[in-house]
Amino acid sequence: MPLGLIEYKDASPEVRAVYDDIMATRKTDWINNFWKALAHDPATLKRTWEDIKQIMAPGALDPLIKEMIYVAVSVSNQCGYCIASHTAAARKKGMTDAMFHELMAVVGMANESNRLAAGYQVEIDEQFKTS
Amino acid sequence: MPLGLIEYKDASPEVRAVYDDIMATRKTDWINNFWKALAHDPATLKRTWEDIKQIMAPGALDPLIKEMIYVAVSVSNQCGYCIASHTAAARKKGMTDAMFHELMAVVGMANESNRLAAGYQVEIDEQFKTS
Amino acid sequence: MPLGLIEYKDASPEVRAVYDDIMATRKTDWINNFWKALAHDPATLKRTWEDIKQIMAPGALDPLIKEMIYVAVSVSNQCGYCIASHTAAARKKGMTDAMFHELMAVVGMANESNRLAAGYQVEIDEQFKTS
Amino acid sequence: MPLGLIEYKDASPEVRAVYDDIMATRKTDWINNFWKALAHDPATLKRTWEDIKQIMAPGALDPLIKEMIYVAVSVSNQCGYCIASHTAAARKKGMTDAMFHELMAVVGMANESNRLAAGYQVEIDEQFKTS
Amino acid sequence: MPLGLIEYKDASPEVRAVYDDIMATRKTDWINNFWKALAHDPATLKRTWEDIKQIMAPGALDPLIKEMIYVAVSVSNQCGYCIASHTAAARKKGMTDAMFHELMAVVGMANESNRLAAGYQVEIDEQFKTS
Amino acid sequence: MPLGLIEYKDASPEVRAVYDDIMATRKTDWINNFWKALAHDPATLKRTWEDIKQIMAPGALDPLIKEMIYVAVSVSNQCGYCIASHTAAARKKGMTDAMFHELMAVVGMANESNRLAAGYQVEIDEQFKTS
Repeated sequence: MPLGLIEYKDASPEVRAVYDDIMATRKTDWINNFWKALAHDPATLKRTWEDIKQIMAPGALDPLIKEMIYVAVSVSNQCGYCIASHTAAARKKGMTDAMFHELMAVVGMANESNRLAAGYQVEIDEQFKTS
Repeated sequence: MPLGLIEYKDASPEVRAVYDDIMATRKTDWINNFWKALAHDPATLKRTWEDIKQIMAPGALDPLIKEMIYVAVSVSNQCGYCIASHTAAARKKGMTDAMFHELMAVVGMANESNRLAAGYQVEIDEQFKTS
Repeated sequence: MPLGLIEYKDASPEVRAVYDDIMATRKTDWINNFWKALAHDPATLKRTWEDIKQIMAPGALDPLIKEMIYVAVSVSNQCGYCIASHTAAARKKGMTDAMFHELMAVVGMANESNRLAAGYQVEIDEQFKTS
Repeated sequence: MPLGLIEYKDASPEVRAVYDDIMATRKTDWINNFWKALAHDPATLKRTWEDIKQIMAPGALDPLIKEMIYVAVSVSNQCGYCIASHTAAARKKGMTDAMFHELMAVVGMANESNRLAAGYQVEIDEQFKTS
Repeated sequence: MPLGLIEYKDASPEVRAVYDDIMATRKTDWINNFWKALAHDPATLKRTWEDIKQIMAPGALDPLIKEMIYVAVSVSNQCGYCIASHTAAARKKGMTDAMFHELMAVVGMANESNRLAAGYQVEIDEQFKTS
Repeated sequence: MPLGLIEYKDASPEVRAVYDDIMATRKTDWINNFWKALAHDPATLKRTWEDIKQIMAPGALDPLIKEMIYVAVSVSNQCGYCIASHTAAARKKGMTDAMFHELMAVVGMANESNRLAAGYQVEIDEQFKTS
């Protein structure tokens, strides 16, 4: 069976430190199940959170755009939990209905044309190799 | 064996009309192999092009963002042709090296956490179902 | 590096027996690389061939239909070798260009709508659970 | 959270027109959740329906065969909604238990051999490139 | 709708023989749903069980290691049923929490770097082709 | 086009430090292309290497077992580069032909049964939820 979830009150100081940083960084007062499950392995909890914190921070791409890319990947992989959590996160960061609809349309189209390219055994154009 | 590619000079008027629209829309003077392969089935060529033209047009999301989402899906699906063609398209639309690096980092991270969520059998939080 | 291919002349009697059965069943005089690679593990070679022989035989579904389903799966999985070999096999069994085009269109469409269903988090209709 | 479903009585004329066409084409009196979810984006609803209507129509392949190919892709992609809806659709079009069993056997086998081909790093035979 | 499950008391002698062998081999007194569903197709039930029995037996790899590899694949494919059943099986064979955590970490990392390799379009090193 | 590879002599001190640590950790005198490509983004290079170094270190699981799990995931995802590089790494760590054959057999079988479970819409047994 699943390992269950580690709530804040039951967490070790090491785990609580990560929980605190998650809540502070996200300006929220709760921890979603993903982290409570990972907390069974503090090393993975800490590494995963620090990687996500670094990767999803503002940079050349806006955090909302990054969150939408996360949704695109999660949808392509059929990860139910990730679709639910990252769609919610994208909405919180400002994704409108219109943006969500276009995101889904692109994800669907890309998944379709990925298979057409494979099925027709299309070779990569020289132009794409050299420019 | 693959069906081969249909060049403009050998194409039917129906196929040429699509080729012309692709070049006009993209402001380019060549057609990449994907379309030359699909041209064996004019109905699919036409439908696929018109869908992509509609979906990738400016809207609530910028065309560059859409192209980067296309790359994210293609990378998750391991479609070599699509990675090469849509990365080139994204660069042409303005994707900088820094943007590409962040895109890849998000795609990698999402693919990782998608599996952690699945492997730990994490249940969807009530908060994600109702808000 | 890859293990290389085991040619008929270099094969053990156990492997040759499988090769012979493949050629007899398929009414052909050569063995494709997939089997020559698996031949490094005679147990897997034999089990895989016998499974395929049983599964792909005429039954409630025609062998050509089965071969096209094989192509559909291989395309969805982006398996280059399998796309090449099973598309060739389907053609040998009678797949016309028109059939191939429709097969690809369905595969592309299914890959697209699979993601729309996931991304929109669509719940299964009661009707599909009870009928 | 998911966007919810748009029922016929709450739908705009544009959406109702698609719903009407779906019911007329399928000779049924209800709309399944997939379309009610897509209805939040009328452009995607209309495009997706028209594409599916065109692609799944009788042609070189029988509609039942097309539906079974749809199931094969959905199963390979682990799309729960699509497996449920397209298996039901295939049954309605005449898929017997025996046909379903053979379909599943082929899908399972293809998914297995796709990985054996990849893992053994098998190169494509010259014969598959030229014939 | 799903075909339902075939319980031991309702099973044919042919199916019961497989059920008996599963319970004897696994030293257990119950059959999990996977087999009860496959029982609708006795040929697939028998072939699948015999393949699994052969493949998962002790050999060059320990049965626990094999079971963990099974989990790794199931997680990568987002197969909820298989994750639940094979994680339980691995625990029964001795997988500790620490082993599970490391397994998940490797699976997550591999899924991430698989996409980085694809997205950066990395070519295979000559050293990997020849040694 | 791909970004190309950054050789040691052309690398920044920051990148060289990672290259040096890779070679020291792996007791080798060369760097494979994956790292030379990632080097275009020193932050991702460093984070990815440090994650892999931590995750693949000896622990509850042997490094060879971890490497074989890496191969299992890479094969399931059809990542050609990763299959080649991690199969070579596993061999270097002691994977025999017999171990490789059994690894492939398990990976193939798991990919097959993952789809049978999905296609037959098998529900998770209560036993797997509570023990």
